[in-house]
Amino acid sequence: MGGEDVVYLGDSARVPYGTKSAETVRRFATEDLAFLLKYDPKLVVVACNTASAAAFDVLRAVCPAELVDVIRPGAAAACRHASGPIGVIGTEATIESGAYQRAIAEIDPGREVVVRACPLLVPIVEEGRDQRDPIVLSVLTDYLREMQRRRPVAIILGCTHYPLLADAIGKVMGPEVKLISSAAAAAAEAQRRLTMTGAVSPRAAGGRLRCFSTDSPQRFRRLGEARFIGGARTIDEVCPVGTDELETAGKELIETDGSAPRESPKRAGQ
Amino acid sequence: MGGEDVVYLGDSARVPYGTKSAETVRRFATEDLAFLLKYDPKLVVVACNTASAAAFDVLRAVCPAELVDVIRPGAAAACRHASGPIGVIGTEATIESGAYQRAIAEIDPGREVVVRACPLLVPIVEEGRDQRDPIVLSVLTDYLREMQRRRPVAIILGCTHYPLLADAIGKVMGPEVKLISSAAAAAAEAQRRLTMTGAVSPRAAGGRLRCFSTDSPQRFRRLGEARFIGGARTIDEVCPVGTDELETAGKELIETDGSAPRESPKRAGQ
Repeated sequence: MGGEDVVYLGDSARVPYGTKSAETVRRFATEDLAFLLKYDPKLVVVACNTASAAAFDVLRAVCPAELVDVIRPGAAAACRHASGPIGVIGTEATIESGAYQRAIAEIDPGREVVVRACPLLVPIVEEGRDQRDPIVLSVLTDYLREMQRRRPVAIILGCTHYPLLADAIGKVMGPEVKLISSAAAAAAEAQRRLTMTGAVSPRAAGGRLRCFSTDSPQRFRRLGEARFIGGARTIDEVCPVGTDELETAGKELIETDGSAPRESPKRAGQ
Repeated sequence: MGGEDVVYLGDSARVPYGTKSAETVRRFATEDLAFLLKYDPKLVVVACNTASAAAFDVLRAVCPAELVDVIRPGAAAACRHASGPIGVIGTEATIESGAYQRAIAEIDPGREVVVRACPLLVPIVEEGRDQRDPIVLSVLTDYLREMQRRRPVAIILGCTHYPLLADAIGKVMGPEVKLISSAAAAAAEAQRRLTMTGAVSPRAAGGRLRCFSTDSPQRFRRLGEARFIGGARTIDEVCPVGTDELETAGKELIETDGSAPRESPKRAGQ
């Protein structure tokens, strides 16, 4: 979808969300959405498993645009892959929320699900450790011990950071276990929705990627380009945004929404 | 100092500070101080190494009460202990700031200092891993390899969380290396300042500990009592406080301070 313009908000000053209470995550996610809505998007991706798990229903209720989470697309991809147990790894908040367990039960009631919270994996990725580092492998072996015993047919990498450890996770689990990236599944779902609503950009390439960060833009660009984006896109610009600005946007959105329930104007005609 | 009333603010919704830019840490720390000043404290402890490293000068300029950081007391204790190299471990932000290196150079110019950022130790403590866990020991061995080679006489545990790993750090470094807790050194400095200014509470016990948390109070109490406080104190109450309230307090403090430089009214006469 290289022709699409993307506005990306990274709440770097308040991350990680995965170790915080559901109430706080819901508040932060609502503020983040309120900020993005100022850019009048045709579709919003809640590109964080923790926010998707804790806040999707709240966001759905106030978002006039198409809204894609990163939980249900990954759950559906895992169910389609093969019958047998599905493994899910994620942050503490994602696993404790039970969101993946519920999403899989809705798609395929009775499917066996094995879950494991892996709190050290995000800091390991952000530290920049190589996947062949013995510490990475021993932490994964520790987290995945029970998962190995239960022999899932697929494991959902239920956190944005985990695909960066896919080789190491594959090494620990063995080649017969399919690794499902929640990010890739969500991107495919976003494309499907835009296609369905006739909202795909006519350009094949040349879309702009504008980023906003609540912490240092320099740091955001460095980490983003080095660790996450690869060669897929160029970051056209990174602008600072204050958390106070997010809080104000959040309050305005809640007040507006409270006064007049809306009919999701962007959903039908675009 | 069991007779002292303590008001404690934990900015749980925005932690960790140690992976964020100095500018963001300064803003958060100023807001935190502004909130605490509403309780008219006789002394404020900046009980976070990252905030002490990035923000102490900024806080000093706007704080009318005695202000104790956690960097310089630990640096002084290490210098007093013995001659020879001093090791410092801390978060990325603390180590990169150079604050310990500067504090030691001021006390004992020319003293050799060996530093190492240890980003995984905070999440390891918060995950609740036992100090005898093989992963804890292999992570520490990895971080402290160069430190072992340089044979420091003392290591400053330059982060609030590290004393909870003191046994494991001692095991990796050996019994001849003195471990210095920045927290214990700062508490001793706070006592010294209160004594100097005649502001020690006449009670020997019975002080109240009131806590405020920007994330879930339940979670704060659970982690606080289980992992940090031990039996030393009872948490009398934990109240929620919004990050928006901190931001407002921060703005008011900066505006007040800009309009009329003050003479640190609490410093002399108490």
